[in-house]
Amino acid sequence: MDRAWLHAWEGMIPVHTPKEAAEWELAHASEGAGVQVCVKPEMGEAYCLRSGIVEGGETGVLQGAFQYLASQRLGKPLPQGMQQPCYALRMLNCWDNMDGSIERGYSGPSLWFSEGRVQFVPQRIQWAARLLSSCGVNVVCINNVNVREPAQELIDSMLPDVASLAALFRAYGIRLMLSVDFSHPLRNGLPTADPLDARVQAWWRERARRVYEAIPDLAGFLVKADSEHRPGPFTYGRNHAEGANMLASAIAPFGGVLVWRAFVYNCQQDWRDQKTDRPMAAYQTYMPLDGCFSDNVILQVKHGPFDFQVREPLSPLLLGMQKTHLCLEVQLAQEYTGHQIDLYTMPPMWAEVMEELPQDRLCAVCAVGNLGSGPFLTGHPLAAVNLYAFGRFGWQPHMDVAACIRDWVRLSYALSPEDTETLCGVLLKSRAVYESYTGSLGLCWMVTPGFHYGPSPMGYEYDSWGTYHRADRNAVGIDRTEKGTGYVLQYPAEMQEKYGKKENCPDTLLLFFHRMRYTDRMRDGRTVIQRLYDDHFDGAQQTREMQRVLQAIPFPAAVGQAVNQCMEKQVRNAQEWCDVSNSFFHRLSGIEDEKGRIIYD
Amino acid sequence: MDRAWLHAWEGMIPVHTPKEAAEWELAHASEGAGVQVCVKPEMGEAYCLRSGIVEGGETGVLQGAFQYLASQRLGKPLPQGMQQPCYALRMLNCWDNMDGSIERGYSGPSLWFSEGRVQFVPQRIQWAARLLSSCGVNVVCINNVNVREPAQELIDSMLPDVASLAALFRAYGIRLMLSVDFSHPLRNGLPTADPLDARVQAWWRERARRVYEAIPDLAGFLVKADSEHRPGPFTYGRNHAEGANMLASAIAPFGGVLVWRAFVYNCQQDWRDQKTDRPMAAYQTYMPLDGCFSDNVILQVKHGPFDFQVREPLSPLLLGMQKTHLCLEVQLAQEYTGHQIDLYTMPPMWAEVMEELPQDRLCAVCAVGNLGSGPFLTGHPLAAVNLYAFGRFGWQPHMDVAACIRDWVRLSYALSPEDTETLCGVLLKSRAVYESYTGSLGLCWMVTPGFHYGPSPMGYEYDSWGTYHRADRNAVGIDRTEKGTGYVLQYPAEMQEKYGKKENCPDTLLLFFHRMRYTDRMRDGRTVIQRLYDDHFDGAQQTREMQRVLQAIPFPAAVGQAVNQCMEKQVRNAQEWCDVSNSFFHRLSGIEDEKGRIIYD
Repeated sequence: MDRAWLHAWEGMIPVHTPKEAAEWELAHASEGAGVQVCVKPEMGEAYCLRSGIVEGGETGVLQGAFQYLASQRLGKPLPQGMQQPCYALRMLNCWDNMDGSIERGYSGPSLWFSEGRVQFVPQRIQWAARLLSSCGVNVVCINNVNVREPAQELIDSMLPDVASLAALFRAYGIRLMLSVDFSHPLRNGLPTADPLDARVQAWWRERARRVYEAIPDLAGFLVKADSEHRPGPFTYGRNHAEGANMLASAIAPFGGVLVWRAFVYNCQQDWRDQKTDRPMAAYQTYMPLDGCFSDNVILQVKHGPFDFQVREPLSPLLLGMQKTHLCLEVQLAQEYTGHQIDLYTMPPMWAEVMEELPQDRLCAVCAVGNLGSGPFLTGHPLAAVNLYAFGRFGWQPHMDVAACIRDWVRLSYALSPEDTETLCGVLLKSRAVYESYTGSLGLCWMVTPGFHYGPSPMGYEYDSWGTYHRADRNAVGIDRTEKGTGYVLQYPAEMQEKYGKKENCPDTLLLFFHRMRYTDRMRDGRTVIQRLYDDHFDGAQQTREMQRVLQAIPFPAAVGQAVNQCMEKQVRNAQEWCDVSNSFFHRLSGIEDEKGRIIYD
Repeated sequence: MDRAWLHAWEGMIPVHTPKEAAEWELAHASEGAGVQVCVKPEMGEAYCLRSGIVEGGETGVLQGAFQYLASQRLGKPLPQGMQQPCYALRMLNCWDNMDGSIERGYSGPSLWFSEGRVQFVPQRIQWAARLLSSCGVNVVCINNVNVREPAQELIDSMLPDVASLAALFRAYGIRLMLSVDFSHPLRNGLPTADPLDARVQAWWRERARRVYEAIPDLAGFLVKADSEHRPGPFTYGRNHAEGANMLASAIAPFGGVLVWRAFVYNCQQDWRDQKTDRPMAAYQTYMPLDGCFSDNVILQVKHGPFDFQVREPLSPLLLGMQKTHLCLEVQLAQEYTGHQIDLYTMPPMWAEVMEELPQDRLCAVCAVGNLGSGPFLTGHPLAAVNLYAFGRFGWQPHMDVAACIRDWVRLSYALSPEDTETLCGVLLKSRAVYESYTGSLGLCWMVTPGFHYGPSPMGYEYDSWGTYHRADRNAVGIDRTEKGTGYVLQYPAEMQEKYGKKENCPDTLLLFFHRMRYTDRMRDGRTVIQRLYDDHFDGAQQTREMQRVLQAIPFPAAVGQAVNQCMEKQVRNAQEWCDVSNSFFHRLSGIEDEKGRIIYD
């Protein structure tokens, strides 16, 4: 078992409550010797630390114990005053399938599903729970939002198995959530799944009763509806508030929340259609429903309007909805961001999101998980930083990103201060490097269709997913200003001003918001095409530089070997990305690189 | 069961030899009443027909009986004199996998494999054998040339099952062939599969003995070696003559032939490499070995130097090798030619091949099969014409293509003379129509990678398969003249003259042999880009026209329905192909269509 950022422990730890877990952690670390745990139930998840004392709510004491030990190990003073999480719901969304595969998973098979059943090694679950708890996650949705057979059984015949799993997580203050199939009633003999049909409502009420009987502290249900061929209320001519509220009402008596994903768009778009603009879809669907959702519904909105690309502007829905509980969704699984082959440290990206998003606009955060049962917890050993940082992000969204990364490095590896800083430096810039060879100037989706890794400049160009750059011999990018698709109008006025004008628009989003000629000059004086070439070359070059630097870090042998293997692939793939992208734009534009570097035709 | 071009018969026909089968066919058709069958063993596959008498060799009598009945039904005079096949080996290559799937199969699952075993419905096998025999096929290779587990068991534990299958085919004068795994000895404990290793030679000799004990008339073994990751002699530093001759020697005592596929090229090419030219690979590999192959080796060469594209020049290897037995390989399975959705009648293509290929250069013909157990024998009901015509092609490669197609139509459907001619017209032009929207001017490989259907202009452009068009803003195509890759030099002088000069090169192969600017004029005065646009638009338009015409043909209901369903898809797909291809070239060239038709950007 990888130790990650906690001290390792083989075998089961005999604890059943967060208090016991807190006491165990303190008792099994030299830094925790003699520290007392004092539960004050009214404190909930909050805690106070004083020398020798951890005081907090029933789960707060465990958070406090982890924080106490971390502060000691990092040589930092104990935090002053009451500590409490910014968001009450800090969820990991695991896209685990019942066959043990994980959709967009790059860390090995599922920890809790295989062969169509709930099957797990208790120590491994406890280890995952301990890790997640130690960084601050408090809810885990265990099954893929695409609920395929036999995952419906999780709220039926497999409830006892789910309850066993829940018990292991519960000891660490983590509650489970379950993704449900909106059309489930059809499977049980009902002629409809119409949310306004009394039989459907009764069916869900009864089902919720059974589920909560087995798992009284279940956090709730998660639903992906009417999205990418999933069933949903649209089938019955109902809107998403009607769909969500019906389910929410079924679980409300038990204190459950209904998390509803806002990832709705037309995935069968005609590429000839230049009016429909996919990033506009969620806003168009949900803004009219603002204020219509029940109090225990949370709308889960991806950070950007597309789908977890390396660079997207903030989803306008997150700014627009005023009367709806919102959950920000990010993705730790590196679907479009390197498949946990390429180094990609995410907190800088989240910090950018929070620069534009007042933290009180949200009531929850959620991350698509990067956990698996492969050799390292998160595939690439250094991808663990994203899991750790996400937990902290839920407590403190305006955290100091560099400090958070440094804490992770120091808790994970015993490196010299110089090596620590070097590693932190690489981690901090890794996202910008990946962006420069894969998504310069806000161009995205130039990846192998379906697989979502590797360069394919035209991969999605004539497909039905609404993700086009429309590069031709003169220009590239989509005009999303009021003269184009009008997407920019979904933003508040000051952001319209920022994004809607070429002269104000950040370089990183230039071709997302504007169509530019290759010969147009950017603010730094370079032409668009030269900037594309420069970024691609720089990205490949910086990847080699990161490889060189990382090779010199004295990681534990197994970690070092895995990091080096990943970096070898990343260097090769970044070069391929650079060469293919440059070739593509050179063939189109006919313009040579000003610096005379090799562009293959 | 579909009747195809024979009269239908449900249930088993109780025959065990071709003579019995001949007698049964005659006895069960009004046109055969009273016709006598007379076997003269020395005549082999040949036959003579006279009124009331079919005389021929042991298999010849069955061929004669089918021909007798066909002549009567078609109202044609009986052929005069002795009839014998041009090629002794006329093989169907079935790419059936043991799990029941068929590689590049579009006609439903395998007729003889499922669940990893040889499993079949005897009537269905007999029906296939009867059909194949009736058109002239005499060998069926039953398993995929990519021999994957557990297909090696076909020459091991599954021999009795294969023998049962062989018996059903044998009654119709058809022998089986088996694809073997060159590395098979490794699987049975040998440390090597080196063809020059005495243990390997002994292993194959003993294995051949066992195989021929079970199936004494097995036609032989078929091998795909050192191709697309298949094992082969290169692993041991041996050449392909050494590999083939070793296997040939093992089966020679039993009269077997060893068919060796010449489909060898570098499938991990770097797209940056402009010197390596995939079409040159087979010639480079095999020409130096001319004269080195044993007498019972046949080299199986695809008709073109690539891989069954809609348009390729003749493989120079077929013209070059003087001292090697050659088999021409064509593909009935519509891998790149429409997936048995699009109408694509192949005999016109084969006739073009034979225009440049003296028929005595070959000793055999082979076709990748289009048989399956789906609702129609060949997926698209009208694709059956290709199977029928292939059988006749093996008897008479310089056949009258239009007459052959007309015979098939008349044997298959009871249509009026007008409808017959209309249908023949559609079939005859169908290949040209498909070519015009998918492969104008010899451009090919612009298909969805892996799947090989649907437009993807850049699909293979940065891949490793050596199949590039290198379209840029000014020009498209590969210069394969002596100034380019030099591929044209693999041809005899007169063909170098024909293909190597733009002014002589047929339009259909212009961009295969030459790189042209979009603004270059063709012989008909049109620019290259205009010709591309015209072809794409014409192809889509002609597809609609074919649909209109076919809708008026009074097919039997089930056939008509299937044809209409396919045509609906073809019309939609041809339009997509047209629009995507035009968009692609318009974005690159910036040149408008002279006729002002809509090109989407």
